[in-house]
Amino acid sequence: MQKRLEALTAWLNDENIEVAFLNSTENVYYLSNFYTDPHERLMGIFVFKHGQPLFVLPAMEVNQLKDAGWGDEIIGYSDHENPWEFIQTSLESRNLQQVEAVAIEKEVLSFGRSESFLTFFPEANVISVEDKLNEMRVVKDDSEIAVIKRATEMADYGVEVGIDALREGITEMEVLAKIEYELKKKGIREMSFSTMVLFGEKSGDPHGNPGDRKLKPGDMVLFDLGVVLDGYCSDITRTVAFQSVTEKQKEIYNTVLKAQLASLEASKPGTRIGDLDKVARDIITEAGYGEYFPHRIGHGMGINVHEFPSMSHLNDGILKEGMIYTIEPGIYLPGIGGVRIEDDVLITADGYETLTKFPKDLQIIEK
Amino acid sequence: MQKRLEALTAWLNDENIEVAFLNSTENVYYLSNFYTDPHERLMGIFVFKHGQPLFVLPAMEVNQLKDAGWGDEIIGYSDHENPWEFIQTSLESRNLQQVEAVAIEKEVLSFGRSESFLTFFPEANVISVEDKLNEMRVVKDDSEIAVIKRATEMADYGVEVGIDALREGITEMEVLAKIEYELKKKGIREMSFSTMVLFGEKSGDPHGNPGDRKLKPGDMVLFDLGVVLDGYCSDITRTVAFQSVTEKQKEIYNTVLKAQLASLEASKPGTRIGDLDKVARDIITEAGYGEYFPHRIGHGMGINVHEFPSMSHLNDGILKEGMIYTIEPGIYLPGIGGVRIEDDVLITADGYETLTKFPKDLQIIEK
Repeated sequence: MQKRLEALTAWLNDENIEVAFLNSTENVYYLSNFYTDPHERLMGIFVFKHGQPLFVLPAMEVNQLKDAGWGDEIIGYSDHENPWEFIQTSLESRNLQQVEAVAIEKEVLSFGRSESFLTFFPEANVISVEDKLNEMRVVKDDSEIAVIKRATEMADYGVEVGIDALREGITEMEVLAKIEYELKKKGIREMSFSTMVLFGEKSGDPHGNPGDRKLKPGDMVLFDLGVVLDGYCSDITRTVAFQSVTEKQKEIYNTVLKAQLASLEASKPGTRIGDLDKVARDIITEAGYGEYFPHRIGHGMGINVHEFPSMSHLNDGILKEGMIYTIEPGIYLPGIGGVRIEDDVLITADGYETLTKFPKDLQIIEK
Repeated sequence: MQKRLEALTAWLNDENIEVAFLNSTENVYYLSNFYTDPHERLMGIFVFKHGQPLFVLPAMEVNQLKDAGWGDEIIGYSDHENPWEFIQTSLESRNLQQVEAVAIEKEVLSFGRSESFLTFFPEANVISVEDKLNEMRVVKDDSEIAVIKRATEMADYGVEVGIDALREGITEMEVLAKIEYELKKKGIREMSFSTMVLFGEKSGDPHGNPGDRKLKPGDMVLFDLGVVLDGYCSDITRTVAFQSVTEKQKEIYNTVLKAQLASLEASKPGTRIGDLDKVARDIITEAGYGEYFPHRIGHGMGINVHEFPSMSHLNDGILKEGMIYTIEPGIYLPGIGGVRIEDDVLITADGYETLTKFPKDLQIIEK
């Protein structure tokens, strides 16, 4: 954590920004190893160009913050106290002079809190700190990679449980409930997003929601799920056929698989990110299904299940060792059904490693 | 919904506010019957002093908005378009003049979006619209009450499932998983907060989290859970004893129950909200456990599981027919165990109705 705070401090000095205020659960966790969401109560880190950082949070959480390793200044406040008064005192003791710029999370910090913070710096330029944090978080270190690998193992297990639960007449919600039950029994407290289990024509709607649809022979079954483990996410999609498969279903499955494998093969340091989308999209378009692949190829993944970068064809960024993201092409035929195949991918020194390991060849489930 | 928009419009006229921008999933749902969270994409309602309201959202959700009943202006934008350009065009067509004030959700709207919005009104006072929405949402209408009643039935069922799952050696997480499994099988897609199942000494920590703790004879077992159903929440807490109970456990249980019943009895139109906390706290304090009841008596409940009002002893607000809130006193003895009993309560014309119905007499579970 110390290195991360130092990197941010170096950036403040380079940009001549006096202080950055970070308020989101995710960025605070990244900088402090302390994961908390006190909802309407104020919580955040002030990082300064000079001097030690300051953590502000409800008093009842101070011990947990220390347990997480925070050794710098702390303001813990009670419900009947105004934390901004304590913050003002701390700021005054620091003798900040000629403050030309301050940084906040512009996309996250509420207008109300920005008013309180900027009261202290009425003349300062207000810079977004989010691009810097995205740049820092996009390359994962070894400890992050280790946690994410454990989260992806749980995602694989979730798909295994889901396939195992399939039988004629079972509903989407029953299969979903079984997946989350088995994951919770293994200690998972939170899914990284609402689990998707979609049967037949419902898999053909990229915005479909699980419900009472009963499983029938000949249905495609789409699973999209992930878990949160020690603050990091996983995200997997698999599609299988139940009892039988038509030539058309086979064709779209194998087209998606070919596109997914091509995009994986392009994954290595130096590749332009937008090209990952392009190689997959070209294969799907050549097969005649371009209009049925309406979303980007993937997204960065870490503390947030969707994080920087957004892997669209427009992204001119370059892949670097340590990046983790999803590759998830799909084809959705309205009224018929859809296929999506998604892996979590780590960029290595000379290529990639697929973190989700569940098999991808078309499976026809006989039960 | 039309009535709600009209009430907000009347307020804008009374306060001479030209336009209010509402951006939170909850307030948007309340005003439009459309529940959506497009995350980083812009979504919200502009309500004007004069003229029809404007709904801005991603194009792919426009049909769902119309299905939900929205008949006024809509801007649907694609990912490659800037919605603020369309908003500007709509604002210009309205010939707004002499804009003295605009209203936003100060606690929710991000600094970045407030910058975009306030560009159009650089000279206007910026008012918080949240107090007005709280005032509107605090009294529930018949359709809201009907939905919340169904949500509370599911909460009762969750407690029943949890108690049914208790047996020596089972872990907190296994019981939690079983509760959510059975609720999901009944179609519940989302819990209203992280389900709590705490055994023995863990129930004595108001910030405890479910884990691998195994159930032992003599443990108190605390369940705190709720569901989201059609956009509305429920929230129940029950505490039971497993196989045996000490005199001390009985004493704290019956003290909490007495406090809870007294607070319920005080629930009727005209009562000062803070008195609900006071009557319960007095009973617990007289019994010698005042320092072990560290939280407020309850909170408003509706689209948010925690919403206005906050039911602390300081609240000078007055109960009105149609209000729904929780009554949840507790006593937590560190290292020993805790008891909390929580119901969802509706204020009726001349008293109250308890919406959560699960029995509250001390149960000793024999299994």
